[in-house]
Amino acid sequence: MNPTACILVIGNEILSGRTQDVNVQYLARRLSELGITLSEVRIIPDRRDIIVTTLCDVRARFDQVFTTGGIGPTHDDITAPCVAEAFGVPWVPHPETFRLLEAHFPPGEFNAARQRMATLPQGATPITNSVSIAPGFSIGNVHVLAGVPRIMQAMFESLAPTLPHGTPVTSRSWYALELFEGTLAAGLSDIQDAHPDLDIGSYPFRRPDGRRGVALVSKGLDRAAVLAAAQATHDLIARLGFTPLEGEPPP
Amino acid sequence: MNPTACILVIGNEILSGRTQDVNVQYLARRLSELGITLSEVRIIPDRRDIIVTTLCDVRARFDQVFTTGGIGPTHDDITAPCVAEAFGVPWVPHPETFRLLEAHFPPGEFNAARQRMATLPQGATPITNSVSIAPGFSIGNVHVLAGVPRIMQAMFESLAPTLPHGTPVTSRSWYALELFEGTLAAGLSDIQDAHPDLDIGSYPFRRPDGRRGVALVSKGLDRAAVLAAAQATHDLIARLGFTPLEGEPPP
Repeated sequence: MNPTACILVIGNEILSGRTQDVNVQYLARRLSELGITLSEVRIIPDRRDIIVTTLCDVRARFDQVFTTGGIGPTHDDITAPCVAEAFGVPWVPHPETFRLLEAHFPPGEFNAARQRMATLPQGATPITNSVSIAPGFSIGNVHVLAGVPRIMQAMFESLAPTLPHGTPVTSRSWYALELFEGTLAAGLSDIQDAHPDLDIGSYPFRRPDGRRGVALVSKGLDRAAVLAAAQATHDLIARLGFTPLEGEPPP
Repeated sequence: MNPTACILVIGNEILSGRTQDVNVQYLARRLSELGITLSEVRIIPDRRDIIVTTLCDVRARFDQVFTTGGIGPTHDDITAPCVAEAFGVPWVPHPETFRLLEAHFPPGEFNAARQRMATLPQGATPITNSVSIAPGFSIGNVHVLAGVPRIMQAMFESLAPTLPHGTPVTSRSWYALELFEGTLAAGLSDIQDAHPDLDIGSYPFRRPDGRRGVALVSKGLDRAAVLAAAQATHDLIARLGFTPLEGEPPP
């Protein structure tokens, strides 16, 4: 069994629709490559009680928890103290990070707000990275990442080699133009029944030129089974009189 | 108090990173305009036990629940029977929808898979719409929408006039180039303290040309208070020696 993961997106700006989240897709792809099963994502507001309660819930239910957002210097950046509260530890200046940030800013500019970014739950390990001087951090099975995608990605890549790995997901796709789900559903269901441990998905698409079709995706941890199931989806498309095209449909 | 809402995104394709979700942002914006507070989003896999348990949880905790995904004709489209199970009602052919779909498809093509799309929890009200012949549906406080964005949007717009409305959110933004969060944090915190019922957010950005800056967003139900807070963010930017620019930074 691969380890499981939950992503906690913390931010009013996602719930208000101001900002389109793109971190979930990045993390989802990377976790899949690493053999970590992304089991759930929650998007919650910048509210202390909700963050603490949700953290306590998800860190008990999943092997790894990744949070994004709320670790900057402003008043609405409350993820770090909430993680401290969820773990029942104090939120204290982290000496090494404090010195690093102090040295980074011009004299007088390492103010109280910026010192918040050097304040971590006691016992946390900073996630230093190539993009931001202020680190993310890990404590127990919770990994706290930035909300800004470029910084979040650098933090995750710095963290990735330390994560418990599993079996990477193998995925194969075939698609067909002008084929509809209702036509292939019975045949696809048979393929799923023959491979109960795989995820066999069917995804209709519509291209900008108006042409429509459907992509059939076979996914799972058993590479040989995925290849066999994908071949079966290829054969199903052909049997229905359509041309199987390999991969995902071009955008 | 505005009514609260939760979005349940049902789909392995989001959790695997295959598909970038865009439905949350659309719904978030529209709910905000309608005066419905989006309190939480959950993204969960196409698994019966998880869908049923999550539905029971969130429909008790939020006034309105919107699901996206899993209402097509294929084996992995299991949202409708799961909603029936969560409500403790049978999943049965909906006569009017059945007749509608039967009339729509050429003879012989309204097969078992397509008949699934005319099968609804007993007591559900179909959400007919301008894009797809197969409807979404509402039962109690749960509204079941398609995953394909164009269809989801049509279903939501057909549903919107029937939803209990609240006070629309007022939002105003000012931004500045080359201003950093650490510099404005103390002043922004004072503005938040002066307006405890508003959400005052600070969002750093980086434009494709490399120029950076920060957007200050004031948001809330009390329009006069939002306008006053936004004016205070304008004045803060100016006081720090930067040029306040109105609105959101161009992409």
